[in-house]
Order: sequence, then C-alpha cells, then structure tokens
Amino acid sequence: MSRRTILAAAAASAASGAVAGSAKAAAPAAGRQAPGVYRYNVGSFEVTALTDGVARRPLDGSFVRNAPVEDVKEALEQAFLGTEKVPIPFTCVVVNTGGRLVLIDAGTGGFLAPTAGQLYENMAAAGVDPKAIDVVLISHFHPDHIAGLRLKDGTAAFPNAEVMVPEAEWAFWMDDGQMSRAHAALQPAFKMVRRVFEPMTKEVRKFERDAEPTSGITALPAPGHTPGHTAFRLSSDGADLIIWSDVTNHPALFVRNPGWHAVFDMDAELAEATRRRMLDLVAADRLPVAGYHFPFPAVGHIARRGTNYEFVPEMWNPAL
Amino acid sequence: MSRRTILAAAAASAASGAVAGSAKAAAPAAGRQAPGVYRYNVGSFEVTALTDGVARRPLDGSFVRNAPVEDVKEALEQAFLGTEKVPIPFTCVVVNTGGRLVLIDAGTGGFLAPTAGQLYENMAAAGVDPKAIDVVLISHFHPDHIAGLRLKDGTAAFPNAEVMVPEAEWAFWMDDGQMSRAHAALQPAFKMVRRVFEPMTKEVRKFERDAEPTSGITALPAPGHTPGHTAFRLSSDGADLIIWSDVTNHPALFVRNPGWHAVFDMDAELAEATRRRMLDLVAADRLPVAGYHFPFPAVGHIARRGTNYEFVPEMWNPAL
Repeated sequence: MSRRTILAAAAASAASGAVAGSAKAAAPAAGRQAPGVYRYNVGSFEVTALTDGVARRPLDGSFVRNAPVEDVKEALEQAFLGTEKVPIPFTCVVVNTGGRLVLIDAGTGGFLAPTAGQLYENMAAAGVDPKAIDVVLISHFHPDHIAGLRLKDGTAAFPNAEVMVPEAEWAFWMDDGQMSRAHAALQPAFKMVRRVFEPMTKEVRKFERDAEPTSGITALPAPGHTPGHTAFRLSSDGADLIIWSDVTNHPALFVRNPGWHAVFDMDAELAEATRRRMLDLVAADRLPVAGYHFPFPAVGHIARRGTNYEFVPEMWNPAL
Repeated sequence: MSRRTILAAAAASAASGAVAGSAKAAAPAAGRQAPGVYRYNVGSFEVTALTDGVARRPLDGSFVRNAPVEDVKEALEQAFLGTEKVPIPFTCVVVNTGGRLVLIDAGTGGFLAPTAGQLYENMAAAGVDPKAIDVVLISHFHPDHIAGLRLKDGTAAFPNAEVMVPEAEWAFWMDDGQMSRAHAALQPAFKMVRRVFEPMTKEVRKFERDAEPTSGITALPAPGHTPGHTAFRLSSDGADLIIWSDVTNHPALFVRNPGWHAVFDMDAELAEATRRRMLDLVAADRLPVAGYHFPFPAVGHIARRGTNYEFVPEMWNPAL
C-alpha cells in the first residue's frame, strides 16, 4: 500500500466511526449503571436495599456550617470523592418481616435531581411489586424521604400500603403556623409535605416516640435533624439492625467528623448531641447500621477511630 | 374472649404457620442475592465488574504463614468479618474498549465452592453475551482464574474469544517436569491447567512481560504469587485503572498488612516485594485499583495509613 492509500483508508475508517486497530467494533457499551439492589438478612427478616440514586451538590462554604470549606475538601479528598461536589446518595430499604412487607422511606420520586428517582425501577429489578408493600414507614418529612410516596401524576406510588409517620413530624410540618413562620428556604419542603400528605390526611397513621409501628421495628427518637426525626431498630431472632435515617449524612464527612453541622440539620446542636449518642451506641455494641445517605448498599458498621469514628462498609455477600 | 379461647387461637395460629399480629403473610422472601453487576468508566472504556461469588475458607494457622492466627483474627474482627472463616470473593471484569470486548480472568467455573461460579449468570444479568467476548486475558493460572474458561461439559465458555496468557505462566504450568516435581497440594492446579488449556494449546496467545496484549491494556509483571503472575494497566483518554489481580488477597488482611504471606503465594518473599512496590505505586499516584479478591464491586483506591495501607472502596455510582 502506498502512503496515500493508507491515509485514504484511515480517513475512510475515521469517517465510518470504525475503531483503528480493530477488525470489528465491540458489542455496544451499556452506557448506564446496573440495578442497585442488595439483600441481607437480619435474623429471619430479609432486607432489600434499593438505591434511589444520588444528588451531587456543589460544595460551598454553607454546606458544613461550622467548618472551613478547605477542611471539607480535605475530607472528600481523603475519601477519593473529588472536591467540587458532595455526592449525596439515597438508599431505601424494603424489609420482609415474614408478616409484612415494609418500605422504609420513599425516595425522591424524581423531584430532586435527574440522577435520582430510581427507586421504582430498582424495586422492579428486585421483583418487588409496589402494590405488595404493606407499610411505608417514614423517618422524617424532608422531601428526599417522602416525595416518592406519590408519582408525578399525583397517584399513590404504594397504593395498598399503610403510611406510618412520626407524630412529632406530622405535628411540626402540617402546622400552617410553622410554615408561615419558616425561612423561605424551607418553603418547598413544607409544600412537598402538603402535596404528599393532604390527599391521605385521614389514612396516615402517626406513631409515638418509642413505639413499635410494626412488629419487630421499633422507633428510636433522633431529633435535631428535624423535630421528629426518627431512626429505627429492627430486631429478629436475636439479630438487630439500626436504620440510621439522617443521623449522619455522607459518612466520609459526618461519621469522621461528628461535630460538623450539615446545612440540612434544623437544630444543629441537638442533631450533634443525637449523632454522638447514636455513634457511641452502635460502635460500643458493634451493631450493623443502614444509612439513608451511606454509599450503596448503605450498610455496615461504625468503628471508633481516635476521638472520632469511621464507617466500615459491609462486605458484599454474593451468596446469602 | 376467655383466656382459654386466646390460647387456643394462638396455638392454632402457630400450628398453621401464620405470623402473630399480622392479618396476612407478606410477599415471599427472595431468598437469594441480587445480581452482582457494577459499571464504571475509565476514559472511553466501559468496565463491568461481575462477581463470580465467594469462597469461605476456614481460618487456620496455615492461612497466613508468618503471622499468629490471633493477629489474623484481630484483623478480621476489625473489618467486621467474623473470625471463623476468611471470605475470599472473586470479581471478574469485562472491558469494552470500543474496539474489543475483553474479559479479564474467567472465574471459578463452579469448580471451587458452591457459593462461587456465578460469572455466567451475572454476565447474563449484565446483558453480556459470552459469544461476544473477543478476548479473555488471564492474569495467572491458579484455578479460580482459569477454571471458568471451560464449562463443566468441557466446551469453551467464551467460544469466540482469543485467549491470551502470560508467557511465563504458560512456560511454568505446562511444563510436565514442574508438575512432577511440585508438591502434592499443587497437583490439582496443574491438572486444572491441563483440563483448560490442552484442548486449545495451539490457539492460546502468549504475551511477554511488558506487552500490550490488546489496545489500551498493558501487562505489568507482578511475580511471586505465581512465577508469571501479571497485573494490567488500562489506559484510555488520560484515565487509568490498575487491574490488581492477586497482588493482595482480601484487603482487610493483606493491604493492611503487606508483610503477611498468604498460603497462596508461591514465592512469598518475591510476592511481598511485588506487593510493596505496587502498593507504593498506586498510593503515590492515587490510581484506582480493581482487585480480583476485593469485596464486590472490587474497585477503589489505596491510601497510606501509618506504615501500612488501607483500601478505600469506590463509592457506588448509581448514575454514570
């Protein structure tokens, strides 16, 4: 072949999109993530973790209220997360207690970020029918935990489920006086609460601080993040799991630095006291923890590390 | 209801298997893990991690040759892995280079443990047709890396793939003199090498120490674990990924303790030198690493921690 022939062939190849050095193109790229579904057992309960996706929040000085942004960047860098944006993952869990199919928190419903709202498709990938959900248990009324209760057309996403919520959350967020006095930044959250709950006001079941809303799942009051913010304890056959809710946001920041105040914590001092109490509990008792904002599959343990803590993700178990 | 009526009702309920406190049974438990499939990009290459499963090896004093078993148990305990068995996960990767679909290592084929041999079904879950695999790249000839090349009926699992192997592995394991001189414990490995490769002796392509067996994937000699043990470097559009192979086994043990000698390392001193050199490289350059025996999805970074190292798993990315 002459040089000219070779160049012409190369140009033709480039124009046709063929890959140089390969006789044929590979199979097409998938171009999207695989379903985020992970199962584990707690005693005789079967837990299915389902990612709803992730929001990537540009990092600015307001994200951690009481730490210099450079310190936050350093913590992100140490976790190999980049320093421009804070990734905030969302993971819901479905608990099959044998008696009931319980969804804990309902995801973003696709209202918060284009990279979130995956709960429904991951539920389908897991073989869980939304109509089979018996109970939806809500930790608190921030939009990323409740928006998914209602589809974009307004219909109930889990039409046969009993929706159970902390009484103190209901009292705070459904109070029009609280809404009228709240900062402008909180108005969308108040509006989402009304969008979700007003069509089912009479059906919603409120549970008290230390209640057992459904057999084997006990409420653990964890106030500060919101007034009625609630964690849960699953107990079955001598095994336990703490459903962490938003006691911390991303562990690389707030488990490592329990004294940091995320912008989302409504009463930052109370949230910190709750966080330190809960971290101490789960570290001392070596209890497994499922965190709504932990990286998927969002379950692991908390270990003491110096005067602070570290999140140790559970090893993925390929064979139950 | 009288007390007797209540007791009779409870007994009837228990006898029928009904769950106390629930009007109906929940949806049936899934009873098995979801597919282990995870995707990430390296430049323009798309990597799909596929778990082949896990082997759980009873821990005895021979597993780490040069450390007291109590120290090994302590390391397992710190990682919340229990202390009776060492979990050894297996993760293969498929690399779509745009030009070729490359499988790196072929899994256990179901020959090693009932909880492993899942590569084929996870490949199906990922939508990857075994017939579409263009290249299988082998890191070394231990059975958990090659047995899956051939199905239990003896046919090739990836019938259209070119199989590429390190020349030094071929020279060692296919040498009948080496086999006859080898310890009895190694005979099954030599036999598996023959089962897998003898039917395709003429087709297998051997690559040299520093070769680029397929465009964008370079061999990194990493001897000690086996004589020709090889890691790989993926490079695409300025991004890199180190395919770690067995430079370390489980990171909770051997990234934390690079001086520990796993029973699998054939030349333990040389393997340790390789391990320390590679750990230093990836920690200094902050290179992402995919490890065959890392917990699924088996990709992350290595950070220095005191005089040793720590594996920092990549955060699961729900939206590519």
